[in-house]
Amino acid sequence: MSLNTFGHLFRVTTWGESHGPALGAVVDGCPPGIAIDEAAIQHWLDRRRPGQNRFTTQRREPDAVRILSGVYEGRTTGTPIQLMIENTDQRSKDYGEIAEKFRPGHADITYWQKYGHRDPRGGGRSSARETAARVAAGGVARAVLARLLPGLRITGYMVQMGRLRADRDRFDLAEVERNPFWCPDAAAASVWAEHLDALRKAGNSVGAVVEVVASGVPPGLGAPVYGKLDAELAAAMMSINAVKGVEIGAGMAAAELTGVENADEIRAGADGRPLFASNHAGGILGGISSGQDLVVRFAVKPTSSILTPRRTITVTGEETEIVTRGRHDPCVGIRAVPVGEAMMACVILDHLLLHRGQVGPL
Amino acid sequence: MSLNTFGHLFRVTTWGESHGPALGAVVDGCPPGIAIDEAAIQHWLDRRRPGQNRFTTQRREPDAVRILSGVYEGRTTGTPIQLMIENTDQRSKDYGEIAEKFRPGHADITYWQKYGHRDPRGGGRSSARETAARVAAGGVARAVLARLLPGLRITGYMVQMGRLRADRDRFDLAEVERNPFWCPDAAAASVWAEHLDALRKAGNSVGAVVEVVASGVPPGLGAPVYGKLDAELAAAMMSINAVKGVEIGAGMAAAELTGVENADEIRAGADGRPLFASNHAGGILGGISSGQDLVVRFAVKPTSSILTPRRTITVTGEETEIVTRGRHDPCVGIRAVPVGEAMMACVILDHLLLHRGQVGPL
Amino acid sequence: MSLNTFGHLFRVTTWGESHGPALGAVVDGCPPGIAIDEAAIQHWLDRRRPGQNRFTTQRREPDAVRILSGVYEGRTTGTPIQLMIENTDQRSKDYGEIAEKFRPGHADITYWQKYGHRDPRGGGRSSARETAARVAAGGVARAVLARLLPGLRITGYMVQMGRLRADRDRFDLAEVERNPFWCPDAAAASVWAEHLDALRKAGNSVGAVVEVVASGVPPGLGAPVYGKLDAELAAAMMSINAVKGVEIGAGMAAAELTGVENADEIRAGADGRPLFASNHAGGILGGISSGQDLVVRFAVKPTSSILTPRRTITVTGEETEIVTRGRHDPCVGIRAVPVGEAMMACVILDHLLLHRGQVGPL
Amino acid sequence: MSLNTFGHLFRVTTWGESHGPALGAVVDGCPPGIAIDEAAIQHWLDRRRPGQNRFTTQRREPDAVRILSGVYEGRTTGTPIQLMIENTDQRSKDYGEIAEKFRPGHADITYWQKYGHRDPRGGGRSSARETAARVAAGGVARAVLARLLPGLRITGYMVQMGRLRADRDRFDLAEVERNPFWCPDAAAASVWAEHLDALRKAGNSVGAVVEVVASGVPPGLGAPVYGKLDAELAAAMMSINAVKGVEIGAGMAAAELTGVENADEIRAGADGRPLFASNHAGGILGGISSGQDLVVRFAVKPTSSILTPRRTITVTGEETEIVTRGRHDPCVGIRAVPVGEAMMACVILDHLLLHRGQVGPL
Repeated sequence: MSLNTFGHLFRVTTWGESHGPALGAVVDGCPPGIAIDEAAIQHWLDRRRPGQNRFTTQRREPDAVRILSGVYEGRTTGTPIQLMIENTDQRSKDYGEIAEKFRPGHADITYWQKYGHRDPRGGGRSSARETAARVAAGGVARAVLARLLPGLRITGYMVQMGRLRADRDRFDLAEVERNPFWCPDAAAASVWAEHLDALRKAGNSVGAVVEVVASGVPPGLGAPVYGKLDAELAAAMMSINAVKGVEIGAGMAAAELTGVENADEIRAGADGRPLFASNHAGGILGGISSGQDLVVRFAVKPTSSILTPRRTITVTGEETEIVTRGRHDPCVGIRAVPVGEAMMACVILDHLLLHRGQVGPL
Repeated sequence: MSLNTFGHLFRVTTWGESHGPALGAVVDGCPPGIAIDEAAIQHWLDRRRPGQNRFTTQRREPDAVRILSGVYEGRTTGTPIQLMIENTDQRSKDYGEIAEKFRPGHADITYWQKYGHRDPRGGGRSSARETAARVAAGGVARAVLARLLPGLRITGYMVQMGRLRADRDRFDLAEVERNPFWCPDAAAASVWAEHLDALRKAGNSVGAVVEVVASGVPPGLGAPVYGKLDAELAAAMMSINAVKGVEIGAGMAAAELTGVENADEIRAGADGRPLFASNHAGGILGGISSGQDLVVRFAVKPTSSILTPRRTITVTGEETEIVTRGRHDPCVGIRAVPVGEAMMACVILDHLLLHRGQVGPL
Repeated sequence: MSLNTFGHLFRVTTWGESHGPALGAVVDGCPPGIAIDEAAIQHWLDRRRPGQNRFTTQRREPDAVRILSGVYEGRTTGTPIQLMIENTDQRSKDYGEIAEKFRPGHADITYWQKYGHRDPRGGGRSSARETAARVAAGGVARAVLARLLPGLRITGYMVQMGRLRADRDRFDLAEVERNPFWCPDAAAASVWAEHLDALRKAGNSVGAVVEVVASGVPPGLGAPVYGKLDAELAAAMMSINAVKGVEIGAGMAAAELTGVENADEIRAGADGRPLFASNHAGGILGGISSGQDLVVRFAVKPTSSILTPRRTITVTGEETEIVTRGRHDPCVGIRAVPVGEAMMACVILDHLLLHRGQVGPL
Repeated sequence: MSLNTFGHLFRVTTWGESHGPALGAVVDGCPPGIAIDEAAIQHWLDRRRPGQNRFTTQRREPDAVRILSGVYEGRTTGTPIQLMIENTDQRSKDYGEIAEKFRPGHADITYWQKYGHRDPRGGGRSSARETAARVAAGGVARAVLARLLPGLRITGYMVQMGRLRADRDRFDLAEVERNPFWCPDAAAASVWAEHLDALRKAGNSVGAVVEVVASGVPPGLGAPVYGKLDAELAAAMMSINAVKGVEIGAGMAAAELTGVENADEIRAGADGRPLFASNHAGGILGGISSGQDLVVRFAVKPTSSILTPRRTITVTGEETEIVTRGRHDPCVGIRAVPVGEAMMACVILDHLLLHRGQVGPL
């Protein structure tokens, strides 16, 4: 079976393939009366849009979104919002060569194994183009959150490319929008640019780590024990193409801590709210938000579509080599930044609605 | 709201608190006609049972499971299977002292924030005792898998305690059952024993990394794009108490790889099935199993209930210190091993049923 | 697969068989802080309890409910509430005779067809004893509704037994609790008593129609278009054992009306709320409550377990006759009244929570 | 919240309003490899299409469906199928007059009560145009069923208009496609034509009863106890616009039967399968199909949009009268026939997939 919906109350169903006529998302359960229009959603899509600099795929897609339902006279009606993005720059002939071969590290082979066939054009449903639909849905979530949680701020950025890590001592969130890597460390961004140029020219690609932080999240969000906020964020991020690891707060490094170190000590804040001395928890305890910043990180593997030949087999089982031409991102992690933000927005809103459903207004 | 169910077709709903009369799981959607009895489930529970050595909590719970429904004359009927475990060794008075304070790093405070009150006895619903219900449900999943996927083998083990890592060159899975840490590296286990003794005596605790591997998984399992096998495993593992990070295959280290390195090259296997030269993917591509071993790792943070005083606040907002007495695991990662195995079993079975529902028999 | 859960936010999972050790319900998603105890739930169970007069099965079950989780110090915690009812008066030997035969009109044969076997003791999972779990869950729902919707009143009663209809001109809701048929027409109740005595002595049984009315339901509940309030009520009632038809408002008779007749004309009420001149709609328009009384009716077929011989086949396909001894309700519709009320309570609460989740407080 | 999805494994999410640019359905979980194209789906849409005779709305919509995803080279891929139907004949000005008034018996008022506003153009989301999306999705279900259950036949027809009932003794299914009422009784169809002409000219409308029968349904479908096949069919049919009652088999009349009458006696069929002497059960026992014909009936209330003035209030609460001009069906029951068939197809397929998921191949 196929499960193309996520969320409980704010439910997003995405559809569409890389080289079909269109793709999109149906957003169900959106609160009514929220001001929204195509421009507001387009704002977020433009951040994910391919072809904006030499470090992303050169496919030229305007990714123009159309709202086909659920909005009337500039406000959500409470009924399903269909967001459609037409594909305009398919170059399916690029895929003729690989239609009979599997790309190592790519979903080509598993779609074949599962469904008995595949759509080779740009990866079909497994393409990262699907994430445009997530970003569009995230745009709706953002509009609702702007009303329900005006103090919320969601910021994604890259903290690592290959073995090169940004330096947290140099972090300046104002830098994030100033370089093609959404990197808060301007110096790292320069180094990365050189590094990625070299890799790209060598017909290679590289992985990355993205961090998404949400501040202004109220305490109490999360539905223990199988709808824990961290479990839902983990699923949301791991469902993004090419993601292989997800961390909350201290993440994998939590294993290295002692109980004494890991305890985020609590003080009484000036405003009567608890004040935490550190945030190893990443803002989540027992699956419920504590009011601290939500901190999520995920690793994105390198693109499997590369120009360096790799050994593989054909659909009929013969051994061969493959070189993937076409227009591919040398570091898909870059464009995963707005996608991670969109997933964060959707999960927070979903749990906000769940919370007020069960417990009442925050 | 509260979401205490996981799974799509093989659905597990758990209930119960650490110090209530009982806890358990309702398993719905189990295939009929599967041979099962209490002893078969008890086998798995006994592996998770507390008090078996000095490295786990000294609470003495037999964790005896009773099947209250869904099994008739030794076989599943296809209707809900209620698995109940009575709590017998509650010592709620241990919690008198902490009832008015929040333990840093513990869900005490967030349950309070969300629900407006909490059950302080042993953490109530947020206690790791809930994982007994998961292991019981996993026992049912194992019985079904033994019939549907006889070649499947699920093995969990600890690969890291604090900063001490097991050495993969010394891995011997036969060692896993021979030391109290489920560690495949016997030498590491000895070092860990000393280390944990020292920490325990110092009133401290420590984190760990657990790895769970499933071999014999057929290709084709997973429901892209929001029911991807890796997304589901990530949610399943992250929902376990104290887990802060989840990795599939290369995990967070995938960020460090180039596309050339990350490509798991494919050769034609002798049996006509694809043969992969490496397994950076952890057995999952595009959210679908490839037939390679599924490899999942997760980090467990150190227990927050420690004897070393930590600064905190009371429920009325006054600053104070806390020391948590009672019987706590100095390294909860140890007992997370059978829990991780159980979650792996449940997720694999659920996706096996989903697959044959949508696509037909494997 | 088996789907033993209903509800979206207020979710009820039932388990257990007629002759197993126990049965029950897990109630998940209950708002926290609601005062509840076993006595409050027992009140509703006692209304459904068998053996209270000669018109229901003579099985003597105290149906004593135990709360095993989710309630602490007399209040709901927001975590799963396990409600367990032990079976104490099983007489499985009654079923020896019918274990090899199928009762016409009974689920015996379809459970066999679906699952490849069955639990013949009292119908196993298909028994109406399952409805005790619904009533217990409904008791929890009622406690929450008493707090969230203090003006709500849910009343169920029988309006028809066989071909004998109660007379609406004689309806007096005060009569409902005064006769064994929950009949608001005292005169009809007398006639029904005679009629049912005669049927029972003749080894026969009879069907009934039950009506459940909820007044004080706020406008706005219901989730169009597949979670319409009427669609959910229809599913809830049709899922009760032996129900074959469900009506909302005018019900099947709506087919006979013209648009002029069917229009429930609207006037401005003294309190500023709309005042409807009639209620053909049964309180629901477009799947959303209008503030009028919710009116649901359902038909319950006659018990299939009767003393009159009926032709059937054995499990091996041979033709034979069957006579069902044991202790059976001659008119199961009677005990369906509190069950219908419980389902009404659960559906209303679920939609109340859904509404405040999506739209905000009422 | 809004729940615009139905089905468990074969999941249909519909979207769109009467006067928006388009409407449609996303079909998720469809088995892969099924031959399908737009023409196959159009076949079913054409049966529901408005404006085909004087007894349905004169709105001229081609209802041309486009497949935007999920089908590649003429076969389903197993990924979401987006079916889009553009609205081409909106005449929103028709609604100017009623934008400030509520139509008695219409969802105008409850959408207003729930969402705080409404889309007055043609009823917005509450319009029966939504059912076009169901019929399109049903077309996909039919294509799958043609492969998985080649012996299945689903037939819907009208059995009653107003107080005029078709005569079962004159039923000839070949007649169904020969008259504008899908009536199997040709004589009744003639009488209905006159009756409806008179009502239409009088500015009135009328209700109807539709029956949908599925033959060739295998035994074993249905998921007791809350996913019972009859409960799912009840919800599916009750979710269709204007439906007020649903019956399975004997339906409401089951209340009038005795146990002796109601027992569908069983004989050994020539093919070794059980042979039932009657079908009061409508093919479902205990929520599971028995192999007999599934028989479902539902009552459709008269259109609330009529030319006869009715008393109502305005959105600001003033009393007034309303006359609804525009293009409305004088008997919406007629066009509900293909919709009921589509829902039947979707429910059967969903349960077929669920069954093979839990139990294995039929």
